[in-house]
Amino acid sequence: MSSTFGTVFKVTTFGESHGAGVGVVVDGCPAGIELSEVDLQPQLSRRRPGQSDLTTRRDEKDEIQIYAGVDGGITLGTPIAMMVLNQDQRPADYDEMANVPRPSHADYTYRAKYGVSAASGGGRASARETIGRVAAGALAEKVLSREHGVEIVAWVSAIGSIEIEPPPEGTVGRAQVDANDVRCPDSAIAEKMIEAIQAIRKEGDSLGGIITCECRGVPAGLGEPVFDKLEAMLAGAMLSLPATKGFEIGSGFEGTRSTGSAHNDVFVKNARGLGTATNRSGGIQGGISNGEPIVFRVAFKPPSTIAQEQETADYDGNTVAFRGRGRHDPCVLPRAVPIVESMAALVLVDMALRQAARRSPPE
Amino acid sequence: MSSTFGTVFKVTTFGESHGAGVGVVVDGCPAGIELSEVDLQPQLSRRRPGQSDLTTRRDEKDEIQIYAGVDGGITLGTPIAMMVLNQDQRPADYDEMANVPRPSHADYTYRAKYGVSAASGGGRASARETIGRVAAGALAEKVLSREHGVEIVAWVSAIGSIEIEPPPEGTVGRAQVDANDVRCPDSAIAEKMIEAIQAIRKEGDSLGGIITCECRGVPAGLGEPVFDKLEAMLAGAMLSLPATKGFEIGSGFEGTRSTGSAHNDVFVKNARGLGTATNRSGGIQGGISNGEPIVFRVAFKPPSTIAQEQETADYDGNTVAFRGRGRHDPCVLPRAVPIVESMAALVLVDMALRQAARRSPPE
Amino acid sequence: MSSTFGTVFKVTTFGESHGAGVGVVVDGCPAGIELSEVDLQPQLSRRRPGQSDLTTRRDEKDEIQIYAGVDGGITLGTPIAMMVLNQDQRPADYDEMANVPRPSHADYTYRAKYGVSAASGGGRASARETIGRVAAGALAEKVLSREHGVEIVAWVSAIGSIEIEPPPEGTVGRAQVDANDVRCPDSAIAEKMIEAIQAIRKEGDSLGGIITCECRGVPAGLGEPVFDKLEAMLAGAMLSLPATKGFEIGSGFEGTRSTGSAHNDVFVKNARGLGTATNRSGGIQGGISNGEPIVFRVAFKPPSTIAQEQETADYDGNTVAFRGRGRHDPCVLPRAVPIVESMAALVLVDMALRQAARRSPPE
Amino acid sequence: MSSTFGTVFKVTTFGESHGAGVGVVVDGCPAGIELSEVDLQPQLSRRRPGQSDLTTRRDEKDEIQIYAGVDGGITLGTPIAMMVLNQDQRPADYDEMANVPRPSHADYTYRAKYGVSAASGGGRASARETIGRVAAGALAEKVLSREHGVEIVAWVSAIGSIEIEPPPEGTVGRAQVDANDVRCPDSAIAEKMIEAIQAIRKEGDSLGGIITCECRGVPAGLGEPVFDKLEAMLAGAMLSLPATKGFEIGSGFEGTRSTGSAHNDVFVKNARGLGTATNRSGGIQGGISNGEPIVFRVAFKPPSTIAQEQETADYDGNTVAFRGRGRHDPCVLPRAVPIVESMAALVLVDMALRQAARRSPPE
Repeated sequence: MSSTFGTVFKVTTFGESHGAGVGVVVDGCPAGIELSEVDLQPQLSRRRPGQSDLTTRRDEKDEIQIYAGVDGGITLGTPIAMMVLNQDQRPADYDEMANVPRPSHADYTYRAKYGVSAASGGGRASARETIGRVAAGALAEKVLSREHGVEIVAWVSAIGSIEIEPPPEGTVGRAQVDANDVRCPDSAIAEKMIEAIQAIRKEGDSLGGIITCECRGVPAGLGEPVFDKLEAMLAGAMLSLPATKGFEIGSGFEGTRSTGSAHNDVFVKNARGLGTATNRSGGIQGGISNGEPIVFRVAFKPPSTIAQEQETADYDGNTVAFRGRGRHDPCVLPRAVPIVESMAALVLVDMALRQAARRSPPE
Repeated sequence: MSSTFGTVFKVTTFGESHGAGVGVVVDGCPAGIELSEVDLQPQLSRRRPGQSDLTTRRDEKDEIQIYAGVDGGITLGTPIAMMVLNQDQRPADYDEMANVPRPSHADYTYRAKYGVSAASGGGRASARETIGRVAAGALAEKVLSREHGVEIVAWVSAIGSIEIEPPPEGTVGRAQVDANDVRCPDSAIAEKMIEAIQAIRKEGDSLGGIITCECRGVPAGLGEPVFDKLEAMLAGAMLSLPATKGFEIGSGFEGTRSTGSAHNDVFVKNARGLGTATNRSGGIQGGISNGEPIVFRVAFKPPSTIAQEQETADYDGNTVAFRGRGRHDPCVLPRAVPIVESMAALVLVDMALRQAARRSPPE
Repeated sequence: MSSTFGTVFKVTTFGESHGAGVGVVVDGCPAGIELSEVDLQPQLSRRRPGQSDLTTRRDEKDEIQIYAGVDGGITLGTPIAMMVLNQDQRPADYDEMANVPRPSHADYTYRAKYGVSAASGGGRASARETIGRVAAGALAEKVLSREHGVEIVAWVSAIGSIEIEPPPEGTVGRAQVDANDVRCPDSAIAEKMIEAIQAIRKEGDSLGGIITCECRGVPAGLGEPVFDKLEAMLAGAMLSLPATKGFEIGSGFEGTRSTGSAHNDVFVKNARGLGTATNRSGGIQGGISNGEPIVFRVAFKPPSTIAQEQETADYDGNTVAFRGRGRHDPCVLPRAVPIVESMAALVLVDMALRQAARRSPPE
Repeated sequence: MSSTFGTVFKVTTFGESHGAGVGVVVDGCPAGIELSEVDLQPQLSRRRPGQSDLTTRRDEKDEIQIYAGVDGGITLGTPIAMMVLNQDQRPADYDEMANVPRPSHADYTYRAKYGVSAASGGGRASARETIGRVAAGALAEKVLSREHGVEIVAWVSAIGSIEIEPPPEGTVGRAQVDANDVRCPDSAIAEKMIEAIQAIRKEGDSLGGIITCECRGVPAGLGEPVFDKLEAMLAGAMLSLPATKGFEIGSGFEGTRSTGSAHNDVFVKNARGLGTATNRSGGIQGGISNGEPIVFRVAFKPPSTIAQEQETADYDGNTVAFRGRGRHDPCVLPRAVPIVESMAALVLVDMALRQAARRSPPE
């Protein structure tokens, strides 16, 4: 009922973390685009577990395969079905949890909602569900890049209390982001973040943080007032990711402390026609892109599955001492970078195609 | 293309700020609910301009009328159409702006999107558009209240840099909120906020702030993984409101500085069965309500229309000195309180009805 | 939950036959189209009751008014709200029916569905609901005509057992259709149809019939496989009209008696490029328009409200003698002609805009 | 953009006839239903090619596999992904057609729409696409049967000009339908149909016909006025099937020749409360089920791919002699019986769940 995202570029994900596979069907992708697994794998590999010692040690190659919608290396305009078969499953890790809902996890609420015991390993609440999003997002990025030169780059801007200064707009690239395992473009701060994550892992604990995302080259005019404003779609997309607790665009929460005269982005003549002298709007005004970079930040909580013992209650209300099993990330942010980029791409490509539909038909 | 919100309780708003009227059609409201204008007017009156000296002096009574979907005071299960006719229009206020896109407003982006000159007064980007949301939200609240005893209360928690301590969950009521013009439940801080707004108005400037919203009595099980997680729908709903720049739920951005062991909400036995000892999750886990109060915060920027002169560019790129005309709010937050409540109600009622559909059909 | 039609050109109707008014909101209409009530009224007048002695004597002017979405005679790209206020209401006509569900009418099923007593006069099941469709359809026709030169013409091809020979494709215009009150392009047969309707009215009985519709100038490429094939959308649109019992396209039911070799439409070179030598496909192949005229037929049953006494049961199961009150049509077909055209236009304009969205974004 | 069907029980199909596989994702299926491949295979086997000498000789086992959404034999409430891997592919059969659009097939229109050469073998226009529908339909039938005792039975009622008398409602079962290869419940007429199909195959030609479908045990109250009337959804569902040209419900086209007094279904007391003495309405009044059997008929044209030579034009407009290659059905009706049942089940289950959502939430 809610595994579908988008109106024109319509993405439907499926699969549980410990089932046969996880995948996605994309309906509404334009025909005639060159596409093969090679286009999709890089983002999946940036997302995959086991890629560095900052992530879970569950080791999955996450090799994506295209099952439908592409013929002779060209998209047909028909649904594109893609799947990653699961490999490294250890459902036994989850057996003893059967009667204890993990704190701040989805076990309790899934049971309340569906009336069946939660699937082992978190089912659809698992981060593994995001594979389908990343595959679809990589496809969306290809469409956006080809058509507009849109470029989307996200990075880790905070881990716990360790935060970087915001780099100037338009300066950070993916190579710089990937230059260290924590995916922070400031290499000195990155070092401290890595140490903090390694330390917290030893304690059997976890850390949260903030990811910043910049979308460049987005043409003015994307976004659909009233309810599907561009920032509303981005906010919904980001808060649909596991472990997210907040979203802000442009000046965000800090901007609420400003005044109108200090906060307004006045217009200036530029090469495109009109631009804004500052970008506190974050590239969006009235729900519609204005041609400036779209900049937003997403808050991720510290992962709730930790090795430390916690005193909690089982489903019957008995107090129990609980310790998370399985192999989990001490910090999700490094792997979340391509996921944030993917969701941004899914929002933007859908908005670009919706805008195309808004034009009256060609003569 | 995007003036419709919701999947089952489907809300379509219409109307420009300076046209004949603004209204809403609600399709999917259950039949058999007692309804008249009396149920809807209070929230509309809390939203209306001219209600205090903190708001715009544009004076509109905003009297709502029901045109369809109700017979003999009972909803029929058919579309409920409601409209407020506009009264106090002064389009002349906007004439001289014709060739200057107002800074941080939607004039420029609407023109980029639709290819026609923006309607006078901001068209659908005007706060006046929210009338339809509030009428529909008041109806949604009635359904939620009748069925579940759900109670939704929002308040102003910050104006500029003036912020209150978060009150304990479940303690703030609407009467307390409405006890002062700024709608802040802490009367001493409210006094300072009011002074700040009055001072900024004199300067021809504007202030932003933060609204906190608490939804109580929401049953566990609402929210639709994967993409329509409850917090995702709330985030999208809030960021679809004019002037919003951020959303956070539960521990939000501050929670990113915590650790898993400190952040987790462990379970405890309570009257309902299981509750959580703390509520850093903000009442939602894995995208599904857990029965605890749902608590979130929304950032509003300072209004972009100010009386101070700003140096900006017209559509032709010429530098011009610009000063906002018309009658505008120096701070939108007091009037935004019922709007935030309304959007929360629209999300919750839709999720409640979607959850009903998820149950296999009755025997 | 189902008063909305379309994906891009999205139409939401509202209103009961005996409430304050009936109307429609159209979201997704392109901006920049000249529009006033003058564009809409002709089709509404062709639909209105009391236009000839073949229709109900309920006399409504059905004057349409635009409330939103148009400024200075130009569509803004925002929702267009239109309404007809009801005038000639006589709810007393319906009082005594309170406990008898009218045979073959919707009283019984509405009560089963909504659990409330049906609204007087049929509520949303009334033909009056179609006013919103016709207003939106007239707008859709304007878009289609301006962009493609699409022309849609429907006519009465059968009343009861009186049937005309199918006229050659492309020959019938609206003036010819409107040359007689029954809207049949064959004037000799029309005379017989008119007599038949007048005779059946005297008997207190009613007649059904068939409407044929031709859509010309539709470009090749409209229609969305798999589920939204063009003929599927047309079939659904037509069967959503009150009193319809069947739909066929091209060769239809008769074509099932043919063989592939006799039925196939072979290709021939023509001015557009390729056309088909025959049009048994009815202008659609594989769910997509092929550039030939789209031709379909819709079956309408004889109206169920008749003045003759019928022996039926009341809600308690008691046998009662029932006689329809109120002022009703002895035959709905003459008034249904513009309604069929309107629904065809709504399908085609939505498909045209969806096809625009399918194109990859412009450079 | 249109491979998704349904609002609550949401079905997305994918796959081309000659790609890696064809499948379906079902989102919104209630949790807690026992499900394995054994429940799905029977309908797929009734649909599969090569099952008798009346069908294409392309031999596919069509073994369905469940990839997600089921754990321990129980549906989780999450998306159910199912796929059939393709086996017997002979793309070479299609090579020489590259420059000739097959008459009355979708080659020409797909190229017009998507701008790429049609996929070999018809792509999504191939009957093979219906595998996903049948898998989803079998699941839907399980839900409907468990909850309501709904039973859906379709059969061949006409092949070419050979037609059976309509059997009394409620008398035909699937065993009787499957007693002969043509799936006609009248064994004497079935014999003639079989002979006719065998004869036409020898001639290298093809035959069309009519399928009748009866849905029993459907509770009163399903169907969503205005646009999603139950008959509208059924009509759209049926016309979305390949090769269909018409749909009629209850009295259908024949009923247009009747009068209101003769056509009305008067109410009578029965065990359920109220029933109708006759069923010319076909089980639906005002778009909502009335508890009587839902009866409709679907027209299928003779397949357009025939072995006989046809004179047609290639894409360049040159006249060419064309003869269909590949292995095709001389008559699709026997295999279409489970497909019609499946689409009926998809409509009914979605409407049942939508009706559940319409109820106000439970206390």
